[in-house]
Amino acid sequence: MSQIITKAACIGGGVIGGGWIARFALSGIDVAVHDPHPEARRIVEEVLEGARRAWDRMLSVPRGPEGRVTFHDTLAEAVADADYIQESVPERLDLKHKVFAAIEAAARPEALIGSSTSGFKPSELQAGMTHPERLFVAHPFNPVYLVPLVELVGSPASDEAALTRAAEIQREIGMHPLRVRKEIDAHIGDRLLEAVWRESLWLVKDDVATTEEIDDVIRYSFGLRWAQMGLFETYRIAGGEAGMKHFIEQFGPALEWPWTKLMDVPEMTDALATKIGDQSDAQSGQHSLRELERIRDDNLIGIFQALKQNDWGAGQTLSAMEARMRDRAVPAEAPDPAAPLALHRATVPAEWLDYNGHMTEHRYLQVFGDATDAFLAHIGMDAGYMGAGRSVYTVESHLRHLAETGPGTALTVRTTVLGHDAKRIRIHHEMVDAAGQVQATAEHMLMHVDTKAGRAAPMEAPLTDRLAALSPGQRGIAAPGHAGRPIRDIGWPEPEAE
Amino acid sequence: MSQIITKAACIGGGVIGGGWIARFALSGIDVAVHDPHPEARRIVEEVLEGARRAWDRMLSVPRGPEGRVTFHDTLAEAVADADYIQESVPERLDLKHKVFAAIEAAARPEALIGSSTSGFKPSELQAGMTHPERLFVAHPFNPVYLVPLVELVGSPASDEAALTRAAEIQREIGMHPLRVRKEIDAHIGDRLLEAVWRESLWLVKDDVATTEEIDDVIRYSFGLRWAQMGLFETYRIAGGEAGMKHFIEQFGPALEWPWTKLMDVPEMTDALATKIGDQSDAQSGQHSLRELERIRDDNLIGIFQALKQNDWGAGQTLSAMEARMRDRAVPAEAPDPAAPLALHRATVPAEWLDYNGHMTEHRYLQVFGDATDAFLAHIGMDAGYMGAGRSVYTVESHLRHLAETGPGTALTVRTTVLGHDAKRIRIHHEMVDAAGQVQATAEHMLMHVDTKAGRAAPMEAPLTDRLAALSPGQRGIAAPGHAGRPIRDIGWPEPEAE
Repeated sequence: MSQIITKAACIGGGVIGGGWIARFALSGIDVAVHDPHPEARRIVEEVLEGARRAWDRMLSVPRGPEGRVTFHDTLAEAVADADYIQESVPERLDLKHKVFAAIEAAARPEALIGSSTSGFKPSELQAGMTHPERLFVAHPFNPVYLVPLVELVGSPASDEAALTRAAEIQREIGMHPLRVRKEIDAHIGDRLLEAVWRESLWLVKDDVATTEEIDDVIRYSFGLRWAQMGLFETYRIAGGEAGMKHFIEQFGPALEWPWTKLMDVPEMTDALATKIGDQSDAQSGQHSLRELERIRDDNLIGIFQALKQNDWGAGQTLSAMEARMRDRAVPAEAPDPAAPLALHRATVPAEWLDYNGHMTEHRYLQVFGDATDAFLAHIGMDAGYMGAGRSVYTVESHLRHLAETGPGTALTVRTTVLGHDAKRIRIHHEMVDAAGQVQATAEHMLMHVDTKAGRAAPMEAPLTDRLAALSPGQRGIAAPGHAGRPIRDIGWPEPEAE
Repeated sequence: MSQIITKAACIGGGVIGGGWIARFALSGIDVAVHDPHPEARRIVEEVLEGARRAWDRMLSVPRGPEGRVTFHDTLAEAVADADYIQESVPERLDLKHKVFAAIEAAARPEALIGSSTSGFKPSELQAGMTHPERLFVAHPFNPVYLVPLVELVGSPASDEAALTRAAEIQREIGMHPLRVRKEIDAHIGDRLLEAVWRESLWLVKDDVATTEEIDDVIRYSFGLRWAQMGLFETYRIAGGEAGMKHFIEQFGPALEWPWTKLMDVPEMTDALATKIGDQSDAQSGQHSLRELERIRDDNLIGIFQALKQNDWGAGQTLSAMEARMRDRAVPAEAPDPAAPLALHRATVPAEWLDYNGHMTEHRYLQVFGDATDAFLAHIGMDAGYMGAGRSVYTVESHLRHLAETGPGTALTVRTTVLGHDAKRIRIHHEMVDAAGQVQATAEHMLMHVDTKAGRAAPMEAPLTDRLAALSPGQRGIAAPGHAGRPIRDIGWPEPEAE
């Protein structure tokens, strides 16, 4: 379990701060929290709950141990021994300056300081600091425990090494750090959001569209594209064979058309604020805030998993996260050969559920199939062995479903070798949850094949030796009663019985 | 097969026109195409190919028969007997006026006319028409065969009934029609896109970010949110308990900050166009245009399926589309009850392959599971039956893998009922390819359950009656030799044999 940092501190525990706290804690890093708000602890606990639920559904590997979250009455106590400090206090420059002064007074000199500010430039934040070089903007997006982007912005006074290390730490907690080349107000993301926001306010003000209609325009059209490709790559495709430059030149003129009203800023009168509030209630009021958060999170998780399947964008971030968790997982010491071998673990993600909310039939076989692969690796079937044109196929399976397995269930598969001959291996898998409840069992006949010739062939070293080594222990395990049994023979009832 | 229209005409067969043609044809509607471009037929065929591939991967139901696509040398011939005409010619008002005049001269007086224009107002398009009331803007987004939004915009001269009927037709081809309340330049979607576009051009021009960095900001942050919720619903959540109006009032001030540079329009100099072109090449040049289209389409499909799982947004559009296709599906004439029942077909998509290039183990069970669902539907287990808290679960399965099934294999599952009692049904599936080669077999024990009580319960009508009706034929079919057989009992070799 190689941890890139041992302790983080979060100053400010609102929705954004809470998201940071969840990221650090769920990544196995201890977090010290300071927030004078009387409700801070409750709010953070709620965000943590949502984050745990989301990560359990999102990850196909066990989450691993959480870091400890501690709450501290003073900022000094919270930051004292932290390697990384994230500031997420309200968007007021004077307040942020006070906070940074207090951090400098109490934190280690080498501790990194990131600010969640959405609008201020790092140079503005650094003003008056003794060690401005270690402060940078680390601007995330809500919900911080799921959305991977963090904009890392330095000023001329910032230390390059500090920003490089900050990026490593951010990757460690599953973020996708993007180094912004120049500091500007609002960085990059909020620049784009503000542009859409202003245009949208005009559309609502002028009664061209309601908030719901604008949202529908976004989520039924370009929002679907932007979850995977941005503006330019999308247009590159639209541009066709002619190429991007040609497309841009075509598009150019439209920019002079008198479309947008962005030249003016709509005044946010009480009337406009009320109009938007009322339309939003009509649009989303039927869902509680908590419901909307769950819907949003479940949709994000599904989108991540879809992109992961295609090894693209945020799906790659998820894959990298899962890979790190696998590496961090405490290495199982050589399993006891005289007991069923626990070689594969999995957590049930949301995408595996059927309409009943239980794991879909074929996903049980997917988990058992992965367990079979883990067993074959355990007896020495690696890339080299397969590269030589030898492999092992499953030729027969007998599955028994014993429970309705729900989302987030932590599954362990225990494997027993029932026997083997020169070409075949007969194994039994038992799938249990964290409480040891058996969810399903599988009996498999595996056949060793010469993949080039496409026919069965005798096993070779090291498989043969490893099986021999397993023999004394595994042959002593009593085969479960259902092993070697057929599905019960039920025929048609006698006609008179109908 | 109730068709809302019998024939559509598409004037202009570029990327957008081709997308419309694919939507109509794949929805079973004949399309007459006119486009003087010498390459028009090739371009349309390519878009159709991409659309067929995408729909096959996206849909969980067979596509059903395609409408005929015919190409015509004259516009008059193409529109002559069309009920709905979609114009997708280049964005020049004079050209569009010519096209509409030609359409009016040759089309049925009651035919509807939709324009794909992204910028012009319907009143501008209607100028000079004899029957302007039946013309409206029907503005789609690329790729039209996948992205569901279509902005329907009328002018004061438009006929309300025509727009209502247009929305019905659009829904019929799987679109999500949005009626825009007032005609404005560029409607709604392109207003928002233009705002982001302008801001992005400044960021590139000022070297704050490259095209790739801007795309990454979008697809790793708010793009993930906008695929499911828009701007306002997302902010509603961010606003928290305080509510939308409060959030808006907070946000208000930021609007006066000197962030955005949208007040100016960046001049599209050749230097800027080249810069963008070069950066785009560096970003996406490693993928061919065709590759990028496939990646985009596969990601969209995954996102649709993820949202469908959560019954949300564009996922609901897909569900509705599949429901319509099920209704339209030519009812298979009742299968011969004295033979195995062919109730489920599937084609092996690329996502189902393992590293050997063969269908992955668990996908066989997925196909068999779908075949079991088809059988249960065949004996009367519908939404109503399950809604009453009764369902059928698979409790045991015996699979035999007999072939290495490759991509694109057209699979048919033949189901035999081996027997049943009050609570259980025992069935046998045979999975064959187009040549009748058996790929795999499955024997399943199904249990009828009271889902509320969570325990086995006797079957009820209509399941009982349907099984009785199947009895005379099915009981006569000899059970395959392997049915009711266990996996061969292979133990450990004798120690001396090692």
